[in-house]
Amino acid sequence: MTANRLKNMPIDELSEGLSRQYSKQLTQRDVVLFAATSGDVNPVHLDAEYAATTSFGEPIGHGMWTGALVSAAIATTLPGPGSVYRGQSLQFKKPVKLGDTITVTLTVESIRVRVALVTLKCEAHNQDGVLVATGTAEVIAPKEKQALDIKPLPAVTIEGL
Amino acid sequence: MTANRLKNMPIDELSEGLSRQYSKQLTQRDVVLFAATSGDVNPVHLDAEYAATTSFGEPIGHGMWTGALVSAAIATTLPGPGSVYRGQSLQFKKPVKLGDTITVTLTVESIRVRVALVTLKCEAHNQDGVLVATGTAEVIAPKEKQALDIKPLPAVTIEGL
Repeated sequence: MTANRLKNMPIDELSEGLSRQYSKQLTQRDVVLFAATSGDVNPVHLDAEYAATTSFGEPIGHGMWTGALVSAAIATTLPGPGSVYRGQSLQFKKPVKLGDTITVTLTVESIRVRVALVTLKCEAHNQDGVLVATGTAEVIAPKEKQALDIKPLPAVTIEGL
Repeated sequence: MTANRLKNMPIDELSEGLSRQYSKQLTQRDVVLFAATSGDVNPVHLDAEYAATTSFGEPIGHGMWTGALVSAAIATTLPGPGSVYRGQSLQFKKPVKLGDTITVTLTVESIRVRVALVTLKCEAHNQDGVLVATGTAEVIAPKEKQALDIKPLPAVTIEGL
């Protein structure tokens, strides 16, 4: 997951229709870490016994975890480092289940060169090709090319996982 | 942060103008956990030396961490457990810095009773009252009252923090 080197795509490398993908599998660890960082301890995500009583029938990922993947895709691939995140819309279409691999596809929809404002179509599909979320992002693209060495994250340990 | 018991607000308890708040401080731990769960290792969040070279001058929280707080507010307070998250728009207005305490205010804007669809105005302010993000959420409100006992999250340990 952790890239060693991140390159961005400055405004002059962007064009309408340009597309990038970013994938991540949802693990139990991810659900616990998302709950810890946000405080969202809703048991539909964390408690299999409770989740079985809901219409989902099993634990599902936090909807905004998929939003976090969209933001990760923007911050690490298109346009990448140096971007300024201005806005995001998301529509949650289907639940994401533990073990699902979600692929975010970003596609440049429009570019306002004078203010470097880029609109990105955002789609998230699971491993079966089912659209789980869709939306639009607005970012200010970086002006200059950057290639950054990324330090590894500190080790994160979860009791019992 | 971890509530021991969560109560929801079913559709018949909701009315236009009803409001709830949810607060959380952004710590270095939260930044690392958000990076781990999303894969967003952009160094503007994680590397003080790099962040000092950006227009922000210091590490900032992931924009979508504030989005995660908005979703946590919905999932734990208004309407709380049993809600189905349909959509979210967010505009990021100002950076969130390490140590900032962000308060999300949710206010019921409209209710379509027949389909239990509730629109919530979402505002996030820092401890100085500065608006850092704003947006609108769409949720299907639960039909039935629930009060749930919440199991504590497993302990999460981060190397060096």
